[in-house]
Amino acid sequence: MSLMSNLSTSMTSSSSSAFLAPTSFNSRTQRVSVPVKSFKICKCVSTPLEQQQTDYKTKVPRNSNIAKLQAGYLFPEVARRRAAHLLKYPNAQVISLGIGDTTEPIPDVITSAMAKRSQALSTLEGYSGYGAEQGEKALRAALASTFYSNLGIEEDDIFVSDGAKCDIGRLQVVFGSNVTMAVQDPSYPAYVDSSVIMGQTGQFQKDVEKYANIEYMRCTPENGFFPDLSTVARTDIIFFCSPNNPTGAAATREQLTQLVQFAKDNGSIIVYDSAYAIYMSDDSPRSIFEIPGAKEVAIETASFSKYAGFTGVRLGWTVVPKQLLFSDGFPVAKDFNRIVCTCFNGASNIAQAGGLACLLPEGLEAMQEVIGFYKENTKIIVGAFNSLGFKVYGGQNAPYVWVHFPGQNSWDVFSEILEKTHIVTTPGSGFGPGGEGFIRVSAFGHRENVLEACRRFQQLYN
Amino acid sequence: MSLMSNLSTSMTSSSSSAFLAPTSFNSRTQRVSVPVKSFKICKCVSTPLEQQQTDYKTKVPRNSNIAKLQAGYLFPEVARRRAAHLLKYPNAQVISLGIGDTTEPIPDVITSAMAKRSQALSTLEGYSGYGAEQGEKALRAALASTFYSNLGIEEDDIFVSDGAKCDIGRLQVVFGSNVTMAVQDPSYPAYVDSSVIMGQTGQFQKDVEKYANIEYMRCTPENGFFPDLSTVARTDIIFFCSPNNPTGAAATREQLTQLVQFAKDNGSIIVYDSAYAIYMSDDSPRSIFEIPGAKEVAIETASFSKYAGFTGVRLGWTVVPKQLLFSDGFPVAKDFNRIVCTCFNGASNIAQAGGLACLLPEGLEAMQEVIGFYKENTKIIVGAFNSLGFKVYGGQNAPYVWVHFPGQNSWDVFSEILEKTHIVTTPGSGFGPGGEGFIRVSAFGHRENVLEACRRFQQLYN
Repeated sequence: MSLMSNLSTSMTSSSSSAFLAPTSFNSRTQRVSVPVKSFKICKCVSTPLEQQQTDYKTKVPRNSNIAKLQAGYLFPEVARRRAAHLLKYPNAQVISLGIGDTTEPIPDVITSAMAKRSQALSTLEGYSGYGAEQGEKALRAALASTFYSNLGIEEDDIFVSDGAKCDIGRLQVVFGSNVTMAVQDPSYPAYVDSSVIMGQTGQFQKDVEKYANIEYMRCTPENGFFPDLSTVARTDIIFFCSPNNPTGAAATREQLTQLVQFAKDNGSIIVYDSAYAIYMSDDSPRSIFEIPGAKEVAIETASFSKYAGFTGVRLGWTVVPKQLLFSDGFPVAKDFNRIVCTCFNGASNIAQAGGLACLLPEGLEAMQEVIGFYKENTKIIVGAFNSLGFKVYGGQNAPYVWVHFPGQNSWDVFSEILEKTHIVTTPGSGFGPGGEGFIRVSAFGHRENVLEACRRFQQLYN
Repeated sequence: MSLMSNLSTSMTSSSSSAFLAPTSFNSRTQRVSVPVKSFKICKCVSTPLEQQQTDYKTKVPRNSNIAKLQAGYLFPEVARRRAAHLLKYPNAQVISLGIGDTTEPIPDVITSAMAKRSQALSTLEGYSGYGAEQGEKALRAALASTFYSNLGIEEDDIFVSDGAKCDIGRLQVVFGSNVTMAVQDPSYPAYVDSSVIMGQTGQFQKDVEKYANIEYMRCTPENGFFPDLSTVARTDIIFFCSPNNPTGAAATREQLTQLVQFAKDNGSIIVYDSAYAIYMSDDSPRSIFEIPGAKEVAIETASFSKYAGFTGVRLGWTVVPKQLLFSDGFPVAKDFNRIVCTCFNGASNIAQAGGLACLLPEGLEAMQEVIGFYKENTKIIVGAFNSLGFKVYGGQNAPYVWVHFPGQNSWDVFSEILEKTHIVTTPGSGFGPGGEGFIRVSAFGHRENVLEACRRFQQLYN
C-alpha cells in the first residue's frame, strides 16, 4: 500500500531539505504557501543533526488482536489491485463494478440544502458548533417517521452517525471482547474484521479460512441464502445483513421471524444491517423492527450512502431500542450513547442538513429516481450473465449481482476478468469462505459503463 | 439524560397508535409526509398484538469496562446541568463559557468552498463517492506543508479524520487492552474515559478519584503545570496535551525535549494533542515533531475545530510517523491505517473541501482573524479575574482560563456561579482530581457575552 511504500527507504532529515526533490517540495508550497511572518503556525526548528535511527523500537507491544487480521481489508485490497492494473495498462479503460461506490450525481434538492447550510455557517444566526452527539433532533424525528412509523421506534432510539461502517466499529466497542459472534457467510467483511480487532475471536485458521470462535452461518443457493438455524451455535451477537451484501438475498418475513425467535431463545443480540433496504423490490421486511419482539433483541444500522449517494458525504444512523437490555438489565442504548459521546462528536452538521433534505417529499422522490436508475443497471447485468448461461443470484432486492463460477477460485476469476476486460469486480471469497466460487458485480455505475462492461463480459464468456 | 427518560414509562405498541399523543405524531408527519404509494420504503406491518415485555433481558453480558465509567462523560453532564438550570429559570440569560464550543461564524472563504463542493456533488464531473479513508491527497499535502514543513513529516504520515476525539478513540482501539497509560492530571477527559472503555485500567477508586492502573501526572501551579517526570512511572502510552486543556499551559521546548527523552528511555509512545497550538502566543513548540527524535516516539492529533470553528463541521487529523514502531518492529502507522480502513470511511468530502480552503493563504488569514478575536476574549476574562484578586492560569497560549478557588469543591463553585450568575463554566475536577479547586472558563463566546459574563463575575465576587 502506498502508505507504507516509503517505509524502508531512508528518510531525509529536516537538515537535508536541499536533498528533497525540489518539484515535490514546490508543488506543495505552490498550493499552500503561508506568509510566515503573519502566521506563526509552524515553527521549524528541528535540530540539524537529527538522523533517522531506523533501528529504534518502542517497548509498546503490538495489539495481538490486530495482528490476527489477514492481509488488507478487502476493499483497499481491491483498490490496490486496480491501481496495479492501471500501472500495467496505463491506457486501459477500467470499469469499476467492484467496491460498490455510488456514481450518480446527488439530486440538487439535497446538495442545495447542504450548500445552504454551509453558507449559513458564515452568519451569526446560521452558525452552529458542537451538535448533539446523537444527531440533530429534527433529523432523528424525520428518520423515525420516515422509516419506522408505526413500528414503535422513537426519535430517541435513533443515533445519527457518519456511516454504518463506523457504527459497527462503535457497537463492537460497546460489546467489548467478552462476547461471541455469528455472521452470515458470506457477508460484509467489516463485521468479522471489527470482531477480530476487539478480541472476540481466536486466530485465523488457514485450512478452513475462518477465525476461531466465530460462528459462520453458511448462506448458499441451496438454503436460499438463509442459514439453517438448527445447526447454528448460540452466540451473544448475530450480525445479519438483509438485503445481504454480497449475495443480494433478502430474508423473508418468515425467515426474519425465525431469526428473531432464535435470538430470543438464545438471549442473543442481532445487529441488523439494512443498508440496502431501499433497493428491495419484493415485499420482504425493510426493517427488522417489522418483526414482533425484535425491539428486545435487535439493533439496526442503516445509511444514506447507498440511498442518496452519500458514500463521500458520510451519514448514517443506528437504531438501539430502549427495550434492548444486557443480561444484567442495563439498557444497551445507554452504553451505546456513552460510546457515541466519548469516542465520537456527531456527524457533520452539513451532512445532516443533506440527510434532512433527503427525507422531505421532494428529496425522497429524487432519491428514489436515482435508486431506480441503479435498479435498471442491476437488471442489465443480471440479463447479461443469464444470457451467458451463468447461475446468477441477487439483483432483485439489492444492487449486487452474485455470479457463480462453480469450482473456481474467486481471486482467480477476479484477476482473469480484470486482466482480460479491465473490469474491477469483487472476489466472493473476500466476504468469507462461503463466497468462494462467486464474484460480486456491483450495479453502481454510469449506464454506458454498465453496458460496456456487459459487452466485455459477453466477449470474454461467449 | 433525555435518552433514557422514557425508559421506565410503558411503551405504546404499534397497535395502539390511537393512544399516541396526536400532536407529536402530526408534527412528525408534517415534516416528512411520504407518499407511500410511490415509495415503498417503509412497510408498517408490526403485529397488532405485540406488547412490550419489560422483563425480557438478553443473555449478553454488559461490557465490564464500560461499567467502570463514572457518571456521564463530562461535557454532556455540564450540558445536562445547564438544561436543568434553564428549566428552573426559564427566562435566565444563560451565558455558556463551559464546553468550549466555538461561537463565531466561519469565514466566507471557507464556507464558500464547502458550498461549492456541495453543489458540485450534483454534477457528473463534481460528484465523488468513497474517498481515501486516510483523507484526500491534496488536503494531506497541504497539512504537511502548512504545519510540518521541514519537520520531516510527510503527506502519507497524515491521516485526515472527523476530529481529534474520534481519532483518540481509534488510537485506543489500535493499542488495545494490554497497554498501560499515563495522562496529565488534569486533562481532557476523553483520554482517560477511552482508556477505561478499552480495558486498560482497573476500577475507579473513589478515595483518590482515580482509576487503578492509570499513571496520573499531576500538573499544578507549583510545577508550572509540567509533571515531575522523575516521579512518573513508566507506561506504554503517554497522553500529553499542549497547550493543555484545561489549564492552558503550554510546555516549553526544554520540557518537551525532556518528555521525548523520557518516552525514549522508557520505550513509550506519546499521544500529543495539539488541538490548541494555533492559540499560542509565546515561542513554545507548536508540534511535538519540532523536538528531535519525536518521530520515533510520538503521534500527534490535531483538529480544525478550534482553528476554524469546525466543531460542528467535523474535521481533524492525526500524524503517525512511519518511524514509530511497536516493540516487534511493526509500524504503528500500518495498524492505525488498518483501523481507519476497517472502522472508518474518511471525513466528509465537503468538510475536507473546507479544510483545504482553510489552508489557502486567504483561508489562513481569515482563520487567524477569528482566533485573534477569541484571544482578545481571553485577555478580557483573565483581566476580570485578576482584578478580582483570583489566581489565574492559562490564557496566554490557549483559549482557556484556569481560575483557582483554593480549598473549594469545583462542582460547588460551578453550581454557585451557575445559580447566581447564569454562567456555565466547567468544574476543574471533571478533568481529573488535579483539577479540584479550579474552574475552567472558556474564551469562546460573542464579545458582548464575554463582557457581560465578566460584569456578572465582578458582581458575584467583588
